[in-house]
Formats: sequence, C-alpha cells, structure tokens
Amino acid sequence: MSSIFNEWLAKATEETEAVVYDYLPKEEGHQKTIFSAMNYSVKAGGKRLRPLLMREAYRMFGGTGKEVEPFMAAMEMIHTSSLIHDDLPCMDNDEFRRGKPTTWKVFGYDMAVLAGDALMIFAFETASRAFSMGADPQRVGQAIKILAEKTGIYGMIGGQTVDVELTGKPVPKEKLDFIYRLKTGALLEASLMIGAVLAGASEEEVGAMEQIAADVGLAFQVQDDILDVTSTEEALGKPVLSDEKNQKTTYVTLEGLEKAGQDVREISERALRQLKALPGEKEHLEGIIAMLVEREK
Amino acid sequence: MSSIFNEWLAKATEETEAVVYDYLPKEEGHQKTIFSAMNYSVKAGGKRLRPLLMREAYRMFGGTGKEVEPFMAAMEMIHTSSLIHDDLPCMDNDEFRRGKPTTWKVFGYDMAVLAGDALMIFAFETASRAFSMGADPQRVGQAIKILAEKTGIYGMIGGQTVDVELTGKPVPKEKLDFIYRLKTGALLEASLMIGAVLAGASEEEVGAMEQIAADVGLAFQVQDDILDVTSTEEALGKPVLSDEKNQKTTYVTLEGLEKAGQDVREISERALRQLKALPGEKEHLEGIIAMLVEREK
Repeated sequence: MSSIFNEWLAKATEETEAVVYDYLPKEEGHQKTIFSAMNYSVKAGGKRLRPLLMREAYRMFGGTGKEVEPFMAAMEMIHTSSLIHDDLPCMDNDEFRRGKPTTWKVFGYDMAVLAGDALMIFAFETASRAFSMGADPQRVGQAIKILAEKTGIYGMIGGQTVDVELTGKPVPKEKLDFIYRLKTGALLEASLMIGAVLAGASEEEVGAMEQIAADVGLAFQVQDDILDVTSTEEALGKPVLSDEKNQKTTYVTLEGLEKAGQDVREISERALRQLKALPGEKEHLEGIIAMLVEREK
Repeated sequence: MSSIFNEWLAKATEETEAVVYDYLPKEEGHQKTIFSAMNYSVKAGGKRLRPLLMREAYRMFGGTGKEVEPFMAAMEMIHTSSLIHDDLPCMDNDEFRRGKPTTWKVFGYDMAVLAGDALMIFAFETASRAFSMGADPQRVGQAIKILAEKTGIYGMIGGQTVDVELTGKPVPKEKLDFIYRLKTGALLEASLMIGAVLAGASEEEVGAMEQIAADVGLAFQVQDDILDVTSTEEALGKPVLSDEKNQKTTYVTLEGLEKAGQDVREISERALRQLKALPGEKEHLEGIIAMLVEREK
C-alpha cells in the first residue's frame, strides 16, 4: 500500500467520521440515556468503511452534492445497530468489541436492545433528510428503498438470522455463501449502490456496483475468518478464535486456510477488474478494495 | 355505539387486516424461521387501529389511490416490532399477549430480537414500495420522514426508553405525559398525518391531525391504565394489574380512577371538536375515537 494512499485514507476516514458524527443526536432531554447509548456505540470506533465506500461511489459517478451525507450516516447507524444486537447475551454474548465494553455491558441489556432499535429507525429518519436537500426525490426514494432492502430480511438481517440459527450446527458451503452474501455483502452492496444512484448512475452501472460490492463483501468476510485464526486479540481489538469457541462453521473450517487466502485474492481481483470497466475516477475505490485483501486487523 | 358503526368497523378492520397481511413475507427460503416469527407476531391479533386510522384519514382528505396501503402495513409492522421487544425477558418479561405466547416464548430470545429488528426495517422496505405506485414522490418522501420521526427516538422508541428507565421509580406527572405522548401518541400521530399527507392535505391540516392524534393517544393510554386496574385477564387477553406488579407509575396511580375516567372523556371530546372543524367526511374517524373512550378491552 502506497504511503500516498494511506495518507488519503486516513484523511478520508476522518472526514467520513465527521459526517457520521454530525448526524448523531444531541445528548440532552428526557431521552438522554438512549442518545448516549447510541453515540457511545457509533463512536466506539470502526473503519467507517461503508460510508466511505458510499462517498467514493457517489464521487466516481460525478456526484457533487450533500445529499449523500445523511445516507452515509444512516449506513453507519444501521451497521452499528446490528453490532449492538449481535453482542447481546442472547446472541453472541460478547463483552468487548474493538477493545471497549459492548453497549449492553455499559448501558444494560434493555437499553442495548432499545439503542439498536433506535439507531435502526434513526437511520431512516436521517436518510429521509435528503428529501429536503434539493436532490431529485425519485433518486432519494430509490436510495431509501435500497437501504431498506439491503439491510432487511432479504439482506443483512436475513443473513444474521440464518447465521444465528445455524450456530453450533454443520453448515454446508451453499448456506455459508448465502449467510456471507447477506450478512456482510448486503451492506457493502447498499453502500456502493446508493452512492451510484444518488449521483445519477444508470441502472446497468448500479447493477455492476452491486456485483462488485458482493465480491468485496465475500472477500472481506473470508479475510475476517482468516484473521480470527491467524491474528491476536491485541491486533484485532477483539477476542480471537471466537468462531471455534462458538462452534461456527467458517470459510476457513470448510476450505482450509490456504484456499481461503487464495480465494480472497481471486475474488478481489475479479471485483477490481469489473470496477476498471466502469467510467469515472476509481483510484480511491481500487485502493480501498486492495486494502481489504491485505488488512491484518 | 350504533350497530351500523359496529358492522362497518368489523368490515373495515377485516379489510385493513387483509392489506397488512398482503405485505407480509412468504414463509419460504433460508430465512423461513424469521419470516415465520414476523408473521406469527403480526397475526397474533390486535385492533389494527393504527392502519385503520391511516386509511380513514387518507379517505377523509379525498385520497383514492393504493399508495396508502404499504404505509398501513408498515405502521402495523413497526407497532408489532415494539411489542415483540417490549415483551422480552430483559424488558417487561411477558409470556403472553392477547392470550397467545409471546414471540420470544415461541421462537426463542435471539429470534425475537431479530424478528423485531426485521419488522422494523421491513416496514421501511414496504413503505418505500409506494415510490413505484404512481404517487407523488415528494408526498411519499414526506410520509416516510413522518414514519421514521414518529417511531424513532423523538417518538415511540424515545417514549419506550424513558418508560423503561423509570420503571420502579417515582414518575412526576410531566414525565408521564412525555412518555404517553411519545410511546402511544406518536404512532397514532404518524397514522393520521401520513394518511393526510398522502392524500394531499395542507400543512395546516396535517398539523391539526397531529394534534387530534396526540389527544386520542393520551385518551387511549389512560384508558389502558384504567383497564389494567378494572378489567380481567379474560376480557383483556393479557394479565391485569401488571402495572402494580412492575411498580409502574400510571395515570391512575397519579390522578386516581375517577379523575382518569373524566380526563379520558374530556380529552376525547376535545379531539372530536377539532376533527369536526376540518373538511371532509369524518363519520368513521369520529366513531373510532368515540369507541376508544368506551372500550372495555
């Protein structure tokens, strides 16, 4: 990874985070506790990968407006809501994430359920602000539709459900692919698609972005499985070998470590080839995708 | 209540329920369990009051299209999602609702969390279908904005949060009013407002519908407190004296049973007066509001 890209990425991540923070609620009034729980969870860190991908897709197709910003924030809110609920005692029962106590450990079980709910709905409240930002209401409407479809039962939530249901049971490759496509891929698909839609990309181009994101999502998730086996708690900021502890079938348990690493590279290369075939300035998106393959945490 | 109104109400409720059911997911595919949990929860019963109010507000302002239907379904989905999460062991820990085992009792704790999440997001997925039904995209966008605002942290979820936080603690009247306005009122406000917005009502008229719904919501919630003390488990289809069991401050504990009953009548009359001042055919809405005062379950 070039140091120029790394510098750009650090700055771009900072800018993206600032956009997300801008849309968080003020911690005041009767509901102060839930506002604090929401903000604690969003601010607990993360790569801000999804909103950044959305911004870059928007710019790649020539977008210059502000209406992508509420969608960037909305995406990170929904992503965070899924992490909060994933960590609950009745789900993965995780006490730490990114080296910090999880939301339920800090705010209690009931508030964590509500904080997840709150972020989920606030995401749509935030996204719908784009209707009063001078953008084409049809495009904003289509973006909201994609946001809901890709985060819902035919997207992220659907993937989580099948994942939870199969924990501790043998998972055939085909079901694992389904889970990865929905649980991880869907949010990345939404990110690239929404950026493209808001910038006025054609239906065909939006479809290509969906395909690229699906591949990136798969590569990202397989890399996650690899790191759970090969990395350390210190480097990841979360416990390693958690898949083994939870008796989870992963890409690595099904295909082995070597094949998994090879597939990450091949899938990423396919995504990069498809990206190159599209018009517009793609250097940054290419850099982010390459980074996902080489990441160590 | 006249028998003509009762006949109309039975038919209208049936029609409303059919619209809601039409938008539920098919129980097939890898995610079958979550689809079943969603459908079980929505089909567990209820008065379908919110979608019915939305339909009647839409008709009152001259709406004749179909685009109100996905919003009717969306409203009932969000309402149901809040009930699923309210019943969880970490919240009210209720095993029965409307005489049936609650979602977590049937599908497990983890699936109930996910089913609530699923319905919440599917509500927005469903509502956004209205963009491809020939309706004005600005109106649909405004309706989605209202849906999110009134169900989120400044609406329903905000009310639930403060409610949960104050359980077992003394609650001053002003905080109780806040909880009732948000927890119960907000969904009714959204129902009447969305119906009006989609039918093209003026900003002033939408504001009047919001006020009316806030009053109806308060009357409805106070009546709930009254019935928790005066009714039976058999009549209500849920345990009575649950507020006392959970050490909850209610309108009845603060104001006494007699004053509470008096207030329900006064607030409802105020709502009815304001409704009468609006244009359009209001007979059905008037009937529903009157019914809320006299209901025994």
